[in-house]
Amino acid sequence: MSTEKCFANGSAAPGPVPKGHIRIYSMRFCPFAQRTRLVLNAKGIKHDTININLKDKPDWFIEKNPLGLVPTLETPAGEVIYESPITCEYLDEVYPEKKLLPSSAFGKAQQKMMLEHFSKVVPYFYKISTGRNNGEDVSGLEAELKEKFAKLNEDLVNKKTKFFGGDSITMIDYMMWPFFERLDVFELKHCLDNAPELKTWTECMSEDPTVKATRHSVDTYKGFYKTYIEGKPNYDYGL
Amino acid sequence: MSTEKCFANGSAAPGPVPKGHIRIYSMRFCPFAQRTRLVLNAKGIKHDTININLKDKPDWFIEKNPLGLVPTLETPAGEVIYESPITCEYLDEVYPEKKLLPSSAFGKAQQKMMLEHFSKVVPYFYKISTGRNNGEDVSGLEAELKEKFAKLNEDLVNKKTKFFGGDSITMIDYMMWPFFERLDVFELKHCLDNAPELKTWTECMSEDPTVKATRHSVDTYKGFYKTYIEGKPNYDYGL
Repeated sequence: MSTEKCFANGSAAPGPVPKGHIRIYSMRFCPFAQRTRLVLNAKGIKHDTININLKDKPDWFIEKNPLGLVPTLETPAGEVIYESPITCEYLDEVYPEKKLLPSSAFGKAQQKMMLEHFSKVVPYFYKISTGRNNGEDVSGLEAELKEKFAKLNEDLVNKKTKFFGGDSITMIDYMMWPFFERLDVFELKHCLDNAPELKTWTECMSEDPTVKATRHSVDTYKGFYKTYIEGKPNYDYGL
Repeated sequence: MSTEKCFANGSAAPGPVPKGHIRIYSMRFCPFAQRTRLVLNAKGIKHDTININLKDKPDWFIEKNPLGLVPTLETPAGEVIYESPITCEYLDEVYPEKKLLPSSAFGKAQQKMMLEHFSKVVPYFYKISTGRNNGEDVSGLEAELKEKFAKLNEDLVNKKTKFFGGDSITMIDYMMWPFFERLDVFELKHCLDNAPELKTWTECMSEDPTVKATRHSVDTYKGFYKTYIEGKPNYDYGL
């Protein structure tokens, strides 16, 4: 029985992970879990997905990962891996098909440094939308975000490549993408106005089959975030 | 001309990195840079060290790493790598002698997850010492740190190993060590009182030749931190 509906506390624990598969514990709208979903999909890895009710987590999930975070991976051997960049690097190492990280040590280090930079951009998406919902003036935060986007734009200009790791999609693009996918939902698309290359990047990313396979419509995102902001997230929204 | 004295703004830039060497930009008392120094030393990697005056950074250093952070590595090819865990993983991949990370993908993931947990412990060292210097009551923070240490202790008990990655030192031990080396300096040694296995770990680590080669005496640390707290860090203290 396969379902996208989330598992809450009191639900029966799923059975063991089938041989030859890997399992992801996820939440349909979580951008961090989406990173791992993108990698699973891009690499064509056989997996099953268990969505978790993050407001009412099953005990059996907390037993597997005491931090109770998604994404969490579980292997047939019962190995548990969490933290989105760690899960993605793990998958790229274990499944050699379509490597997403460069083969050279310096290439890998470059991608990790880019991700480290980007991790300082992520909080803006949340701060701005929370601030706006609280009726605060977020123009200062928006100006800072625009500056961060300008830096990312400059990076693409200097590299003269379509994507952040070259002319095809690599790991770093998938690590950044989930937040850009939500620009419309967070009403932040205007922050791209002075970052033309970055905007082109978002357009190229939108065309990627893996991105298409893991995304929701803007309406679905908006519907979910409305329930989220109201403090009663409907993790099954749109099913 | 080799010197441990720090380079400040206005100083002449060092020459290119010699072939067969790697260069670390460091600061003698920085725990993050010490992680990389530990790895360089443990693996016997030929390197030169340029210490940076972090209060008055040379322009040529900012050109290499716009973030101006130590540790920063530079290769003879001019490749620049920063962020301590990234530098350490890079070194372990490029220099195959005495691997510090496990060979399996899951083993690596485990070490990264441990480091992620530990990154939430690091701020306590600073918060407690800063709070104390400001005359604040830090007993609450100390209680929280003791709890974090108890968790680390439990981890060692469950694993039944001397070190965090097995019965010999691996990467995760070197990533955590610099903060434990400073427990005495920060007057936090009593926080180990209810963590006997963790205390034994600190004693075993103290005996490691690599740890011995990169450490300063408690008096030297105390002397430096005094100048640091006064806002006039003497990066050449004790030379």
